[in-house]
Amino acid sequence: MRRAGLLLAAAALVFAAPSFAQDQSAAPVLVNASAFAAMRSEEARYPLFAAELERMRAEVDASMRAGINVPVPKDPGGGFTHEQHKRNYRSIYGAGLLYRLTGEPQYRDFARDLLLAYAKLYPTLGPHPAAANQVPGRLFWQSLNDSVWLVHGIQGYDAIRDSLTPEQRRTIDDNVFRRMAAFQVGEKANFDRIHNHATWAAAGVGMTGFVLRDPGLVEVALKGTDKSGKAGFLRQLDLLFSPDGYYSEGPYYQRYALQPFVVFAQAIEANDPQRQIFQYRDGIVLKAVTTAIQLTYDGYFFPLNDAMPDKSLKTEELYQGVAIAYGATHDPGLLSIAQWQGRTVLSPQGLEVARDLAAGKARPFPFASMLLRDGPAGDQGALAILRDGPGAADQVLVAKNTAQGMGHGHFDKLGWLLYDQGNAIVTDYGAARFLNIEAKDGGRYLDENDSWAKQTVAHNTLVVDEASHFGGKLKAAEALAPRQLAFVGEGKTRLSTAEMAGAYPGVTFRRTLVQMDIDGLSHPLVIDLLKVKGGKAARYDLPLHYSGQLIDTGFPLKSYVTTRPVLGQANGYQHLWVDATGRPDAANGRITWINDGRFYSWRTATPGTEIILAESGANDPKFNLRREPAIIQRLEAVKDATFVSLIEAHGRYDASSETTVGSKSAIRALRHVRGGDADLITIELVNGRTVTLAIADDVQSGVAHQANGLRWTGHFGRFDSAGKGAAQ
Amino acid sequence: MRRAGLLLAAAALVFAAPSFAQDQSAAPVLVNASAFAAMRSEEARYPLFAAELERMRAEVDASMRAGINVPVPKDPGGGFTHEQHKRNYRSIYGAGLLYRLTGEPQYRDFARDLLLAYAKLYPTLGPHPAAANQVPGRLFWQSLNDSVWLVHGIQGYDAIRDSLTPEQRRTIDDNVFRRMAAFQVGEKANFDRIHNHATWAAAGVGMTGFVLRDPGLVEVALKGTDKSGKAGFLRQLDLLFSPDGYYSEGPYYQRYALQPFVVFAQAIEANDPQRQIFQYRDGIVLKAVTTAIQLTYDGYFFPLNDAMPDKSLKTEELYQGVAIAYGATHDPGLLSIAQWQGRTVLSPQGLEVARDLAAGKARPFPFASMLLRDGPAGDQGALAILRDGPGAADQVLVAKNTAQGMGHGHFDKLGWLLYDQGNAIVTDYGAARFLNIEAKDGGRYLDENDSWAKQTVAHNTLVVDEASHFGGKLKAAEALAPRQLAFVGEGKTRLSTAEMAGAYPGVTFRRTLVQMDIDGLSHPLVIDLLKVKGGKAARYDLPLHYSGQLIDTGFPLKSYVTTRPVLGQANGYQHLWVDATGRPDAANGRITWINDGRFYSWRTATPGTEIILAESGANDPKFNLRREPAIIQRLEAVKDATFVSLIEAHGRYDASSETTVGSKSAIRALRHVRGGDADLITIELVNGRTVTLAIADDVQSGVAHQANGLRWTGHFGRFDSAGKGAAQ
Repeated sequence: MRRAGLLLAAAALVFAAPSFAQDQSAAPVLVNASAFAAMRSEEARYPLFAAELERMRAEVDASMRAGINVPVPKDPGGGFTHEQHKRNYRSIYGAGLLYRLTGEPQYRDFARDLLLAYAKLYPTLGPHPAAANQVPGRLFWQSLNDSVWLVHGIQGYDAIRDSLTPEQRRTIDDNVFRRMAAFQVGEKANFDRIHNHATWAAAGVGMTGFVLRDPGLVEVALKGTDKSGKAGFLRQLDLLFSPDGYYSEGPYYQRYALQPFVVFAQAIEANDPQRQIFQYRDGIVLKAVTTAIQLTYDGYFFPLNDAMPDKSLKTEELYQGVAIAYGATHDPGLLSIAQWQGRTVLSPQGLEVARDLAAGKARPFPFASMLLRDGPAGDQGALAILRDGPGAADQVLVAKNTAQGMGHGHFDKLGWLLYDQGNAIVTDYGAARFLNIEAKDGGRYLDENDSWAKQTVAHNTLVVDEASHFGGKLKAAEALAPRQLAFVGEGKTRLSTAEMAGAYPGVTFRRTLVQMDIDGLSHPLVIDLLKVKGGKAARYDLPLHYSGQLIDTGFPLKSYVTTRPVLGQANGYQHLWVDATGRPDAANGRITWINDGRFYSWRTATPGTEIILAESGANDPKFNLRREPAIIQRLEAVKDATFVSLIEAHGRYDASSETTVGSKSAIRALRHVRGGDADLITIELVNGRTVTLAIADDVQSGVAHQANGLRWTGHFGRFDSAGKGAAQ
Repeated sequence: MRRAGLLLAAAALVFAAPSFAQDQSAAPVLVNASAFAAMRSEEARYPLFAAELERMRAEVDASMRAGINVPVPKDPGGGFTHEQHKRNYRSIYGAGLLYRLTGEPQYRDFARDLLLAYAKLYPTLGPHPAAANQVPGRLFWQSLNDSVWLVHGIQGYDAIRDSLTPEQRRTIDDNVFRRMAAFQVGEKANFDRIHNHATWAAAGVGMTGFVLRDPGLVEVALKGTDKSGKAGFLRQLDLLFSPDGYYSEGPYYQRYALQPFVVFAQAIEANDPQRQIFQYRDGIVLKAVTTAIQLTYDGYFFPLNDAMPDKSLKTEELYQGVAIAYGATHDPGLLSIAQWQGRTVLSPQGLEVARDLAAGKARPFPFASMLLRDGPAGDQGALAILRDGPGAADQVLVAKNTAQGMGHGHFDKLGWLLYDQGNAIVTDYGAARFLNIEAKDGGRYLDENDSWAKQTVAHNTLVVDEASHFGGKLKAAEALAPRQLAFVGEGKTRLSTAEMAGAYPGVTFRRTLVQMDIDGLSHPLVIDLLKVKGGKAARYDLPLHYSGQLIDTGFPLKSYVTTRPVLGQANGYQHLWVDATGRPDAANGRITWINDGRFYSWRTATPGTEIILAESGANDPKFNLRREPAIIQRLEAVKDATFVSLIEAHGRYDASSETTVGSKSAIRALRHVRGGDADLITIELVNGRTVTLAIADDVQSGVAHQANGLRWTGHFGRFDSAGKGAAQ
């Protein structure tokens, strides 16, 4: 029976699988019966899909062995009732699909019995007893989880609904799904927010509307509780993503937010195709998926803002996202992502992914340098990604010139990250949180998330007078965004220039980050030019958080080897131990570290800077922080300042062959001068070659500049001693 | 011509490869002509061998493009002349083999021209100018590297020697190899040592003897400079390995020492087969190879004594060792090691490996619990390895009950390590060294190797009064070894008991480490019982160095969050920061950490112990140390003491699915009482089950014991509450 072709044929057989579609008016709508039949006939043919089916079978079978358990809600996240209700929605979803894909009635029975148990429990529930500062749910401590339950539960229910008796159907329709949808819509303030929590709510309510044949619910889901369109799914699509598909909270939450967007969009496409939801707003749903993929390195999301750095594309949201986007576009680059994920989903689109992967249609995903504008209108700053190449080991520079990104945003305007050889080199701490680990504050964001992870000094950007941007205040931070002034993603000199005004009263700072290919060097050089204009004399700190073991410094250190001072009192400074300090001269401002067998030499040409070598972990009695090193450039009592630094990847230590090559920097000197209306940065290599980068204050293209005998047109010019002048 | 079968047929073809064997009296002897011909005819058939040939070709071709460069020796390790002479011996070796395997004369010419350049340079050389505290070489700062040059150079030369003119041959024979061999033999004290440096010398000299048809050189190599047999290769085979094939310096140096043993043994087998070198001393050469493999976890060597923890089986010595052992035994378990290595060597044995791997003959290598006796007679303690299973993710406990192991030995009698899920959990620091990284003291052992890595407190064993075992004195340490008293490698209760007397004057300590499978727990529990009998009241510290992020402790901590004291003044204590201290009561002595998504709960039942949470990295102005956490149990002013602790692996944090299970310990209590002549350790699980382990002082089997109502026979008894009495 696994390959039954037509439904009627199947139903006609004695001892065959149960006949689907006992009641046509209850036929499945999220995935229709013929699509299920097609999956059932092909399920075993393609390894990725067959494996998915086996995985789901193992999971649901285990739940079936454990038996029906629908407890009265009690525990917060991570606790037993919380985890059991999560298991239950996965069981309902999985058992429903398995019923359709295998024809085995025990799966239908299990999903049905679970739902009947919920039909008894749910009407008795009030607000969850463990509710905290989030909107309380009924099954869970926060209503968000209730929405997620609904999105999964309705899909499982849709798959079995036509095989139930009218009485069972009425019971479950009325006592589970109508009530759950009503609860979500009734939390009006939450439902009408422009926020990913509301997207989950809209998706659950809208899909429930399709399944219960209730157009009113669908309309509320699409257009908000008052059906005006000022809220609801479509408005969320308008406002939560930028025109480039960037989600305001950052990559980690973009990943998380994605699932209700793509799952509900797929349901709309199936039930209301004339709406052309995948074309809505210039294809924003699909853009959100491919942009999410662009926001990764070696498969891991850039850990900007509140983010777990161990989060990769191997996640349920992206299995769904990749499959749905592939179903809509058949872009073969998505297949290589599915291949890396090693997973897909049990849907018609997942079947297509598995089928086309098996047919060898995968092509490399086109990872590329790109500027992703932020804000609904694309005018709230941007994320600038510079890539040395499309590969997982190529060098990637990420300039975080985005807006605040709501409550999960960190206070690091114009911060940046660097990846190389598959590793994070210039790092972002991400969130201070141990997700779902109960002993660590129930798995919630820790106090150290506020006291350290969100603070500016925990990032790679300017700190004025030991205070965080906007005083660490969300409302102030949301009012202002950086301006992306220039971006060049291709060629031998790739560059981003952005400016932030108002992160501190009276202070404007501008940063140019450059990734330069230089003949004879095997990896690009990274140049960092950060210029501050302040209203009054202040202390300027520019931290650089790196990953690796320090090898040596070019300048002498004063080391704190028996007592390490704590760097400061507040705003994250209380979490930094001082290992050493030093004052490089114009020639020796170099620090070399090693990461994964490759050397990284950082170099400064900032005049008069003190260097502080620090490590996170002070004032951390509960061992909540990771202990990671940082280099801080510090200028005291200055009004205007220019920080110039550079990172060079070089050499190779090979543990197998016990050989080391290129452990010394290939750079002899880094110099900076101001000339005309430009900054001139000169890199002198040990082999005698010099490269000068001229960066004009004026970011316009087409404008001619000259300084110190150099002439160029546009924002920057590049002058290689081996070449004959400017080449951009 | 790549598949030319017989030499005569090949030689008869016009435009064919050069005829080998122009002079039969100079025909190759280390690998004979027909073996070379067989390799040449099959080279392309087996992927592993073909890849090796391409790799060698790429390396030698690059050297050929760079040209002949035989500089006057000047630099120490890591410097240019050092690295160039290393490249040159690899080039001579590789070009010689390539000439035979491809028939292309440019490889012969390159090897020949390099050797002729050495023939000019070598006679002019005296002791190396950068010689330090090692025996000076001529080409290198230490004669060891000269020996390595000779071992490689003679193999390359052997491959081309019959194609040279008599004049060229005489020049190279006399001015390179005879002189090099004479230099090695002339350094009499070094040559006659029982030490791996002397094995390299013997191998080089002996192989030179075979190639130059000089039996006198061979005899010196086998039996020492006076040919008495008191020194030389055979004596080294007698004394440097234990009867179980364990090398006295530990796994890292076992790996390093292996190459001259196996390569020279193979040469002896080829040229003097009636000596039956592979049967010598009960097959010690082959045992040394398989034992080296047993000394790994997930392919990485246990980092005991001076060792780089990044050293794996992917190393030249083990490519050679695996191929030569396979050639001698055809043990299919070795093929799976070659598969993991992804490499082999360009030798007849390497060809066999590649051929049989391609034929699918590989079987899993039989990793197993085993006791490896130490010392030439097997009576100098032992290394005890307890394995939960043969897989790379299974749990492995290593008890270091070995002798000192010469100058590279660390002062940690009865120390131990634990591996689980592919990771080191209870760790050994290994050596403080950045191999071949010039900026770190030229890549040599750092001062911190003596001040930290070798000291007892840097390990997981007893420290008395903050001093290291034997006062950190090598001579005293070499005089005494632990006694291995009991070992059980199989069954549900695996165990090692050993005793050390005299590491401190008047102090004897005994340690039983147990790996127990317990029904209902998914991973074995580890029990650690360490009993001290001291002559006078002292401070006893028992450190546990672990890898992971601390989650929480069962007892309150006094934290040093703004000023971390340094734990002590000397003997490694000066390198430990104190993070926190605490005094657990009888019920709450638990610390949980997480490593790679699995939780580890450590638990103590040591009465009255203070707990110190520490981190390495104090007094380290050059950032030479890794910063790693340790738990120290401290007892003050006691004479006799019993430390009882336990490690439990449990649960799973899954970043992809954002789920956490089993983050809480499944153990409710750990109790210890003394009863009769035994220690009774009881583990009480949360589910009510209890397991009591009774460990008698008497280690004899067959002796009946009773204590607290329990009866058992032999060293230990186990009593599961679910069972009905003792089961071992």
